Amino acid sequence: MSHNTFGHLFRVTTFGESHGPAIGCVVDGTPPGLTLTEADLQRDLDRRRPGQSRHTTQRREPDRARLLSGVFEGRTTGTPIAVLIENTDQRSKDYGDIAETYRPGHADYTYDAKYGLRDYRGGGRSSARETATRVAAGAIARRVLGAGITVRGALVRIGEDALDLPRDAWDWDQVDANPLFCPDAATAERWGALMDRVRKAGSSIGAVVQVEAEGVPPGLGAPLYGKLDQDIASALMSINAVKGVEIGAGFGAAALSGEDNADEMVPGPDGRPAFLSNHAGGILGGLSSGQTIVARFAVKPTSSILTPRRTVTRQGTATEIVTRGRHDPCVGIRAVPVGEAMLACVLADHLLRHRAQCGAVAAARRDTDG
Amino acid sequence: MSHNTFGHLFRVTTFGESHGPAIGCVVDGTPPGLTLTEADLQRDLDRRRPGQSRHTTQRREPDRARLLSGVFEGRTTGTPIAVLIENTDQRSKDYGDIAETYRPGHADYTYDAKYGLRDYRGGGRSSARETATRVAAGAIARRVLGAGITVRGALVRIGEDALDLPRDAWDWDQVDANPLFCPDAATAERWGALMDRVRKAGSSIGAVVQVEAEGVPPGLGAPLYGKLDQDIASALMSINAVKGVEIGAGFGAAALSGEDNADEMVPGPDGRPAFLSNHAGGILGGLSSGQTIVARFAVKPTSSILTPRRTVTRQGTATEIVTRGRHDPCVGIRAVPVGEAMLACVLADHLLRHRAQCGAVAAARRDTDG
Amino acid sequence: MSHNTFGHLFRVTTFGESHGPAIGCVVDGTPPGLTLTEADLQRDLDRRRPGQSRHTTQRREPDRARLLSGVFEGRTTGTPIAVLIENTDQRSKDYGDIAETYRPGHADYTYDAKYGLRDYRGGGRSSARETATRVAAGAIARRVLGAGITVRGALVRIGEDALDLPRDAWDWDQVDANPLFCPDAATAERWGALMDRVRKAGSSIGAVVQVEAEGVPPGLGAPLYGKLDQDIASALMSINAVKGVEIGAGFGAAALSGEDNADEMVPGPDGRPAFLSNHAGGILGGLSSGQTIVARFAVKPTSSILTPRRTVTRQGTATEIVTRGRHDPCVGIRAVPVGEAMLACVLADHLLRHRAQCGAVAAARRDTDG
Amino acid sequence: MSHNTFGHLFRVTTFGESHGPAIGCVVDGTPPGLTLTEADLQRDLDRRRPGQSRHTTQRREPDRARLLSGVFEGRTTGTPIAVLIENTDQRSKDYGDIAETYRPGHADYTYDAKYGLRDYRGGGRSSARETATRVAAGAIARRVLGAGITVRGALVRIGEDALDLPRDAWDWDQVDANPLFCPDAATAERWGALMDRVRKAGSSIGAVVQVEAEGVPPGLGAPLYGKLDQDIASALMSINAVKGVEIGAGFGAAALSGEDNADEMVPGPDGRPAFLSNHAGGILGGLSSGQTIVARFAVKPTSSILTPRRTVTRQGTATEIVTRGRHDPCVGIRAVPVGEAMLACVLADHLLRHRAQCGAVAAARRDTDG
Repeated sequence: MSHNTFGHLFRVTTFGESHGPAIGCVVDGTPPGLTLTEADLQRDLDRRRPGQSRHTTQRREPDRARLLSGVFEGRTTGTPIAVLIENTDQRSKDYGDIAETYRPGHADYTYDAKYGLRDYRGGGRSSARETATRVAAGAIARRVLGAGITVRGALVRIGEDALDLPRDAWDWDQVDANPLFCPDAATAERWGALMDRVRKAGSSIGAVVQVEAEGVPPGLGAPLYGKLDQDIASALMSINAVKGVEIGAGFGAAALSGEDNADEMVPGPDGRPAFLSNHAGGILGGLSSGQTIVARFAVKPTSSILTPRRTVTRQGTATEIVTRGRHDPCVGIRAVPVGEAMLACVLADHLLRHRAQCGAVAAARRDTDG
Repeated sequence: MSHNTFGHLFRVTTFGESHGPAIGCVVDGTPPGLTLTEADLQRDLDRRRPGQSRHTTQRREPDRARLLSGVFEGRTTGTPIAVLIENTDQRSKDYGDIAETYRPGHADYTYDAKYGLRDYRGGGRSSARETATRVAAGAIARRVLGAGITVRGALVRIGEDALDLPRDAWDWDQVDANPLFCPDAATAERWGALMDRVRKAGSSIGAVVQVEAEGVPPGLGAPLYGKLDQDIASALMSINAVKGVEIGAGFGAAALSGEDNADEMVPGPDGRPAFLSNHAGGILGGLSSGQTIVARFAVKPTSSILTPRRTVTRQGTATEIVTRGRHDPCVGIRAVPVGEAMLACVLADHLLRHRAQCGAVAAARRDTDG
Repeated sequence: MSHNTFGHLFRVTTFGESHGPAIGCVVDGTPPGLTLTEADLQRDLDRRRPGQSRHTTQRREPDRARLLSGVFEGRTTGTPIAVLIENTDQRSKDYGDIAETYRPGHADYTYDAKYGLRDYRGGGRSSARETATRVAAGAIARRVLGAGITVRGALVRIGEDALDLPRDAWDWDQVDANPLFCPDAATAERWGALMDRVRKAGSSIGAVVQVEAEGVPPGLGAPLYGKLDQDIASALMSINAVKGVEIGAGFGAAALSGEDNADEMVPGPDGRPAFLSNHAGGILGGLSSGQTIVARFAVKPTSSILTPRRTVTRQGTATEIVTRGRHDPCVGIRAVPVGEAMLACVLADHLLRHRAQCGAVAAARRDTDG
Repeated sequence: MSHNTFGHLFRVTTFGESHGPAIGCVVDGTPPGLTLTEADLQRDLDRRRPGQSRHTTQRREPDRARLLSGVFEGRTTGTPIAVLIENTDQRSKDYGDIAETYRPGHADYTYDAKYGLRDYRGGGRSSARETATRVAAGAIARRVLGAGITVRGALVRIGEDALDLPRDAWDWDQVDANPLFCPDAATAERWGALMDRVRKAGSSIGAVVQVEAEGVPPGLGAPLYGKLDQDIASALMSINAVKGVEIGAGFGAAALSGEDNADEMVPGPDGRPAFLSNHAGGILGGLSSGQTIVARFAVKPTSSILTPRRTVTRQGTATEIVTRGRHDPCVGIRAVPVGEAMLACVLADHLLRHRAQCGAVAAARRDTDG
C-alpha cells in the first residue's frame, strides 16, 4: 500500500512522477469562503522553482499551477481543491542509464525491491519534483491559517558551516533577498562561495533548515499520537532527503539539566503566561503553548554527483555510476519553502481539529469571560 | 479532537490517566494464529517497570497486564486485543499542589489552555505512565514481526557524556545486564556515578536513545506520506519528552559531502546488493533497503526538579514551584524499551501494508524465480 | 485486517468477545467539559439489557459499565473515554457443540474461512453482545449532541405485521412502556401474542426498526464519501443481523415520480425554508436539511432456532444442527436502542466535523447577521 | 470537513465540479505490475456516458479519461494513479436561474446552509457528473480483482414496474444489448415505452438496481465496522439519489422466519460448504461466504422536472421553479455502471485488507494442506 495522503481534516493527496504528463494534488477540508487564486499558489511555487540562481538545478520548469476545482468566483467552496502542474522540461534521455543501474543513496533499488518495476525517468515518484505540489498545498494552508499566523523558514547550515548569529539578530528580509534563504547577508556571501566550490567539484553538500510559526494560539495538537510535534516531525521527515528533525532545543536538550531546560513563566500582559525562554520550541505535552513554534530538519547531500561510485545493476552485476544531468548540489536550499509548506499544512490541520473538539468550548468560555 | 490511535493496519489505541482506575490499549489488525500470552507482554513491561534500580522513580507499579480479548486458547484470533493495566500505587496527595500551579516544562498550562480542565493527578493523560501501554502493544508487534526481525535499543548518551564505542564493539548482553541499558560495562559504571550526582542534586538530565531493527526485508514503507522513516519519526516523537529524531547519519548527514554520504553497493551473497556503509540507516526513498534500520531520539531532562522555578498559577499570579514526588531523574533511561516498542509497532504496520499491496507480487515473483 | 473503529472525530473502538473476560470500547474525540457519569451510560444500557421481558433472551447480564478514563470529577477531559463491561453470566457449556459444526446463518464458517480459528463460545466476536458497547458509546454521543438534538427509535414491523399508524399518531411514551419498543399500545399487544407463538415454536422472526433525530441543524454531512446518509447506512448496516437500510422514503422512493417525491418548500417562521413533506428523510445531497432525520433498517430473524437445519462440520461432513441456548427470538427488538446509539454516534461525529470545517464560517455569519 | 476519499487500502479521492475545468480522481494503493491503459477506463466510462439513447440526458460529454500518473509502459507502478476528465459540453447559461432559487429535492439549500456559498452551475460538486470518476476508479478496481472475480449489475425495477423473472432466467447479454441495462428483452421493451411516457410528460421516475459479484473468495470483510456489507452499503448510499440499500434478502428478510431465512449447507465439491440458498447475499457476519454477493439499491426520481414546484429563494421569498435543461428522466439507468464500480472498489479494498491480515495465514495453510 502507498499512502499518498497526509493530514486528517486538512488533507493533501499528491500524485505524479517527474517525467509523466503532470504532477498535482487534491486538498480536501478547506473551509469555505476563503479567497484563493492561482496567483496565491504561484507566489510560493516561484520561491521553490529551480533555475533561479546558479546554486540550484538548471532545469527550467515553469511550475505553473492550475486550479481545477473547489474554487468558485475566487473563493473556496469547501469542496476538494485540485491543483495540476504540467511537466514540461523533461529530458528523458538524461536518465536512460539509470534504468538498469542502481544509484547509491537513491531509491532505485528499494523501489525495484518493493514494486518489481519503477518509472526510472528522473527518479519517477521519488523525484523531489513532487515537492512542488506540497508548496501549492502549503499556500492553501496559509489561507486557512489566516493573517494572524506567520510561517517562515531559513537555511541555518550548509555542510559544516553554520549560521553563527543569535536568533533575534536574524534579518528576515535577507532571506528573500539572497538565493540561499540565509537570514544574514555576510553568511550568504560566504555560503555562495562554498556552493561554488561544491558545484565546480561536481560534488554535493548537506544542509539544515529552520522553520518557524508565529501567532499560533495555545492548545493546538493532541496529547498522544496526534501531538503537534509528532505531526511536524512526520511532515518534515516526509520531505525527500531529510534525515533528522528536532523541535526547540532538540538534540541539544539531551545535554541540558532540568534547571536549564525548563522554560520559566511569569504573568504576561494578556493574562496568559509569558515564557522566559523557548527550549520547548513552542510545544508542551504535544500542544502548542502560544510561543513561536521552532523546528529544524537535516537534509542530506544529494546523491547525484560526478564522482564515480561503486554499485550494482538490476541483474546484480558490479559496476560504477556517475550521475550526470541537472541536479541541485545542495537540495537543502530549495527545501526551505517546502519545509514552510509542510509546517503550514500541519498547523492548518490542527487548527481545524482543535476547532472540532474544543471550538465550542473556547467560544463558550469567551462568552462567559467576556 | 484527540487522536489516540496510531498505525494503519496494525492499529494501537491507548487510553488512561496516571491516577485513574486503569490504563490500557486496544491493538487491532493482528494476524490470526499467533501465539500470545500475558507473559509475553510482561517480559517487556518488566524491562520498563519503575523502581528496579536507584536510577529510576521509586514508584512500585506492578504493571500487570491482562488480556481481555482477541486471544483464544493461547492464540490471536484476528479480532482486537484489549490490554488492561490497573493503576495501583497512586499517591494522589503528592500532586495536590499542581492543581493550581503550572509546572514549567510540563503540559499543565497547555492542557488547561486547550481543554479548560485537566486531570492534574500525576500529570493525568500526559504522564509517562501511558508508555506502559505502548510497551504492551510493542510486545504484540514483535509477534507480528516474527523471529526473523529483531528490534532492540540502547542508551547512547546521558547529558554530554556520549557512549564512545564503535557500533560493532557494542555488547548487547550488557544492555540487559545494567540498569542503564548501556551496551558497555565501563560506560555504564561512569553513567551510574553521573546519575547519582544528578539524583542527589535533585536535578535531572537528558539522554539519547538508539533503536535498531535487524532482518527487515527490503521494500517496507511507502514512497510519500507513508515513508518508513517518516512513520518512525512520528512514532518516536510521540513519546513523552522526546525533542528530536534522526535516521542513520541523521543531523550528521548535513555535514557530509555526497561522496561520503552515499552508501556504495557491491553484489551480495544472496543476489541482493550488499551495502558498504549505512549512512541511510536502512531506509532509501522511504523504503527499507534490507540493511539494519537505525534511529536515534533525544529525550529532554524531566522537568520535575527540586530547584525552585518561576511560574504562574491558573489565576495568572506569579509564584515559584518545586516539584516533589517520585520522578525519574533521567526519563531517557526507561525510554529505551518504549522506543523499541514504537519501532516494532511501526514495522508491524508496514509489514502488513506491504503484504497488502505487494504480497501477491512478491509471491508471484518467488514462484517465477524459484 | 479488522477495523474495529468507527467515526472520524467522534471515534469509537470496540473490543471483546461474548465469553471472554470483558467487552468494552474507547471513545475518542469527545469535547471537554461535558458532564458524564456511569449512570448516564447505564440508563441506555438498561434499555438494551437482556432478560427484561419474556420476549428477549433469558441471559442475565447486568451489563454494568465502568468508566476507566477520560472523565475527571464528573466531566469529560477531552482525552479518550474507556468503558469496560465485565462478562458475568457465561455458560460456555451451552456452546460446546458449535465448535465443530457451522450454524447456518451464523458467522461460524466465514470466521473459520478468514482466520483459520475462532472463539466459538457464544459466537465470540460476532455475538450481539458487542452491541452493549455501542449503546455505551451512544450515551456519550448524546452528551456531545446536547439537549437540542433528540435521537429515538421504535420497532415498526415484526415479520409481516407492520405498524399501521401515521407517523404523527405515534405515541412515544408507549415506546418506553412496552417491552417491544412499539409506539402504539394495541399494536404492542398484537405483537406480544405473535412473539409468544414464535417463541413457543422455537422459531424466530425478522423486524424493521425506525430511528429518528430531531433538532439536527442544517448542513451536517459532506457532499461525497462523507455523506450523512452514507455514514448512517454504514453505521446501521454494521449492526449484527441487519440486511437493509433506507433513508426517508427509501425503497418506496423508487416507485415515485419526481413530482410526488420532491419535498416542496415555503418560507419558514425562522427565515429557513419550511418543507411540506419529508421524503428525503432530512438529508439532501448528503447534508442535513434541518428536517427530522428518518432511517429504517431491516433485521433478519435470528438464526438460532430449534428446528434442525442441514449443515457441515469443520471437517466437511454433512450433519444437522439445532441451536439451543438462550436466544432472542426476534433480535430486532433489542436492536432499537442499538440503532439509536449508532445514529447518535454518526451525528456526533458529523457535528464535530461540521464545526471543524464550517464552524468559524457559521460563527462569522452569525456575527454579521446578528 | 468534506471527506472526498473512500476506501482504506484501495483509496479513491475524487474532485471536480460539473462546470469547472475538469473532474478526476486519484486512486492509491493499486498493486504494481497490473496492465492498465486509458482504453480500460474508457470501456466502462462509455457504458455510463450520457447521450447514448433517448432515455438519458442529451448532454454530449465525451468523458475522455487521461492517465496522469502511476502507470509506466502500460503497467501500474504502485504509486497513485491520477485520472483526469475534462469538462467540455458545459452550457452554464442553462443554470443561471438556480443561483438564487432552491430546487426541491436538490442539494441547493443544504450546500448554502453548510458552506454559505456554492458553485451552482449544473449542481457543482453535487452533480451526478462526479460519478464518471467513480466508474474510472472502478475500472482500475476490476484490474485489482483480476479475472476470477466478476462484478456486474442490472436494472430490476423502474417505478412500480419490477422485473418479474427468476434470477437464474436473467440474460446477462441482454443487459449490454438494450439501453436500460435490463436482463430481459421483453421487459426492456415495456420499460422503454414507460420511459417514453415519463420523458414526454417532463416527469421523472425512480428505479432499483441490482449489483452482484461472483468468484469472491470466502473471508473478505471484517467482523465489525469493516463489515463487507457495511462498506457496500456505504459505497452504494454514497451514489447520488440513492435512498436505500439491501443485501441478499434485504428488507424481505424482516418478513421471514429463522427456518426460511437460514441458508442450509451441504458438503461442496471443493471441500468448502455448498449453500442451498442465498438469503444472506453472500455475506455472513460481515465476511464473504464464497457465494455470489448480491446488493440492491433504490434510486429516487430525479428532482429536475418540468412541473412547477413551490420553493423559496436564497433571500427567503416564496416562488415556484421549473427545472429545464438536459436531465435524465430516470437517473437509476446510468446508475448501473456506477453501482458496479462502487462494488468493485469495495471488493478491491477488502481483498487488499484481507491479504494484509490473513494473507500469510492463508498461504501457510495452503502450504500445509497442499
